[in-house]
Amino acid sequence: MTFGDRVAKAVAERASQLVLGLDPDPARLWPRAVELAGGAGDPPAPPVARAARAVASHCALAIEATASHCVAVKLQVACFERLGAHGWAALADVVRRAREAGLLVIADAKRGDIDVTAAAYAQAFLGETPTVFGSVPGLGADALTVNPLLGADSLAPFIAAARCTGAGVFVLVRTSNPGAADVQELELASGGTLSERLATLVSELGAPGVGAAGLSDVAAVVGATAPERLARLRELMPNTIFLLPGVGAQGGKIEGLAPAFSPSPAGGLVAASRGIVFAHERDGGDPEAAAGREAERLRELTWQLTS
Amino acid sequence: MTFGDRVAKAVAERASQLVLGLDPDPARLWPRAVELAGGAGDPPAPPVARAARAVASHCALAIEATASHCVAVKLQVACFERLGAHGWAALADVVRRAREAGLLVIADAKRGDIDVTAAAYAQAFLGETPTVFGSVPGLGADALTVNPLLGADSLAPFIAAARCTGAGVFVLVRTSNPGAADVQELELASGGTLSERLATLVSELGAPGVGAAGLSDVAAVVGATAPERLARLRELMPNTIFLLPGVGAQGGKIEGLAPAFSPSPAGGLVAASRGIVFAHERDGGDPEAAAGREAERLRELTWQLTS
Repeated sequence: MTFGDRVAKAVAERASQLVLGLDPDPARLWPRAVELAGGAGDPPAPPVARAARAVASHCALAIEATASHCVAVKLQVACFERLGAHGWAALADVVRRAREAGLLVIADAKRGDIDVTAAAYAQAFLGETPTVFGSVPGLGADALTVNPLLGADSLAPFIAAARCTGAGVFVLVRTSNPGAADVQELELASGGTLSERLATLVSELGAPGVGAAGLSDVAAVVGATAPERLARLRELMPNTIFLLPGVGAQGGKIEGLAPAFSPSPAGGLVAASRGIVFAHERDGGDPEAAAGREAERLRELTWQLTS
Repeated sequence: MTFGDRVAKAVAERASQLVLGLDPDPARLWPRAVELAGGAGDPPAPPVARAARAVASHCALAIEATASHCVAVKLQVACFERLGAHGWAALADVVRRAREAGLLVIADAKRGDIDVTAAAYAQAFLGETPTVFGSVPGLGADALTVNPLLGADSLAPFIAAARCTGAGVFVLVRTSNPGAADVQELELASGGTLSERLATLVSELGAPGVGAAGLSDVAAVVGATAPERLARLRELMPNTIFLLPGVGAQGGKIEGLAPAFSPSPAGGLVAASRGIVFAHERDGGDPEAAAGREAERLRELTWQLTS
């Protein structure tokens, strides 16, 4: 089954296009996660080990509280990587938890490098690595975000690896941050912006990977903070799943995202992170209940746009 | 001491601009590294644990064989990351070995993300992470490669973190792969290429970080495979250290790199990976001796260009 078909099926079954973004800050975790991480132990565990345990618990609790409203999780790899080897073990643990909850797993790693290195990253996140001691499985994500600055030959290994396993690749086309304009919005001599050129590249690379649902395994990251550009990007990428970060804390509004949800409701996936996980700070109540309510609110708001 | 001054001092002291690139392939390690990783043990260790041990040994042997000819190591993070948590532990081990050998450590991770996430990556590689259990030290690299597609606000947290500790940031300006042309060589409506625009951005961001030696802490990755562009990029980035990958296996030649070595010999750092580590496959002899000879040859060839 192709990635596009897997996403279309999951969106239909769960009646949700909501992606729970997890970018755990080990200085700002849910209190119950810190409790679950336990005491220092005897001999005392170093801070990194306890922090990684707490991060894994925090993510597990957030998944438990919201999974029934979501179709996928987006794991911000930086937030695990800053805890080194312990953080990577926590990341693997969270991938397992998300799968058990029936969610697709998007590793938000924004990797990009020359072909031989891109192939190594693909092994890390989507595939497996041959070694002299036997094969080593990778993280087992369903999709990975990648950076296209190095051109088509740097994306090819990611796409090849993804296509082998029914996984997907989300290429950065127009990111959600204000500085995106510095580079992505530059006007090209040949007409259009760099972002539009990247969109064309995504569409071309994705053409062989379009499944029965009309969606490709080469997908795009398109910030929810620039809704005025969505219609044009949809024109250039008619069969592309859009991952739309930037809703909530970054100022993006779901109401502006309608053009994303074509050719089918699964054409757009809305990622919300801090808005869900810190809903209790705005709405009161305990973190679990507030996150669940906010996820359901975002799910319904998005679903209504497309029906 | 600023990063630029640290590099200038190290280059002068070691009479070398050579950077040992380590991108260990766990299916193709030096035989002695595989032996050092030991047997399976009882109970047998899983392949990932043995592969990570062998990768760390391979890198330690390569550092030992070549350190006296080099000024820095460039660690390809993808090659460790594909071994998950074990790989990250090996990476931390190799950082320690390189430091003990007196080498600067460049983490070649090509990270790039929105500001809050860029700050998390900076904690991972250059700084430390506050947690509810106490502070967790990062990898402790001297420099990190970063991707500028997300614009100036995505680079700022890396530069701020680096400047705090005398570390540096290498921004991708013109990479060494053929596909670099797809995006980086696009002509802009305002004139010049995207790569040249990135060079201007690097120079601006780096201006406050120029040290006594005339070199900034915001450096650039400029592939050795496009020597015809070096003079123009040097014009646009007069105070920038160029990291020049692509010599050897990718076809770049040291002889073409002269414009890089200004304003001082430390203005250019030549990275060679497979050409050194697999020198024995071309030259014969044991891997250690062949790597040492090739490193010395590349060191001398580069040094002569600048004296």
